[in-house]
Amino acid sequence: MSLVFAQPSSDHTKVEEGLAFTPRFDSHGLVTAVVTDAEDGMLLMVAHMNAEALALTVETGIAHYYSRSRKALWKKGETSGNLQTVVELRTDCDQDAVWLRVKVAGHDATCHTGRRSCFYRSVDIADGAVTLTVRDDIRHFDPDTIYDKK
Amino acid sequence: MSLVFAQPSSDHTKVEEGLAFTPRFDSHGLVTAVVTDAEDGMLLMVAHMNAEALALTVETGIAHYYSRSRKALWKKGETSGNLQTVVELRTDCDQDAVWLRVKVAGHDATCHTGRRSCFYRSVDIADGAVTLTVRDDIRHFDPDTIYDKK
Repeated sequence: MSLVFAQPSSDHTKVEEGLAFTPRFDSHGLVTAVVTDAEDGMLLMVAHMNAEALALTVETGIAHYYSRSRKALWKKGETSGNLQTVVELRTDCDQDAVWLRVKVAGHDATCHTGRRSCFYRSVDIADGAVTLTVRDDIRHFDPDTIYDKK
Repeated sequence: MSLVFAQPSSDHTKVEEGLAFTPRFDSHGLVTAVVTDAEDGMLLMVAHMNAEALALTVETGIAHYYSRSRKALWKKGETSGNLQTVVELRTDCDQDAVWLRVKVAGHDATCHTGRRSCFYRSVDIADGAVTLTVRDDIRHFDPDTIYDKK
């Protein structure tokens, strides 16, 4: 990794209106990454990136994240084959989040459950109680076959 | 606020496949909220919600967030008039993020800079250096007029 990000300016206007990419990593060294399908805009996943993951993503054009549960760099799709090629990368006003428009390889599935998107359930109110409803139950791959269960 | 969320199960399968909405708030008591336009799917903003903001959003159908900079509940659009009516709320596999599909009132603008979306700049590589390019510079309102400058 050769890319090093400059420190954000303390001037809000520079961060919001400038053309310098100076990501604002949080106290854990992470920015939020929103991932949508470049073709139809479907929200596929939300993840996090540290500076290394962000630099690798920019340099290689393949999405890399930081897994908070595994505490490790995470090349998305390395096991499942569902790599994400970045079509466009954007950042938001205060530069603490990035948006990746991607093309998904392999099974065209992003969620580790085998579904296309991680957002397969809606939150609904029924009789005053909150419940979930499954909106997409199509499995594009079998997680038990793809992932090594240790 | 009357809605109280149950604690997440320690069983991953229940969290991922169950129909109980048990949001996994992080160590700061927050979940990530991704906000898209219900009509055309445009990514408008990324924010955070604490339990109070999430409950108010579910109960009222109007998006509420938690402002990390102001350390306060934030009814989005209260000042600008650009309230967000929630058309659909979803959660992701591990229930630490929510997705709001919204209809924006007022100026149909979400970013405090006056633009429709907070993601108005793309990250690009030019001559081996990273730079930003403005992709949307249309101001739907004048921030200096709308917001009280203290």
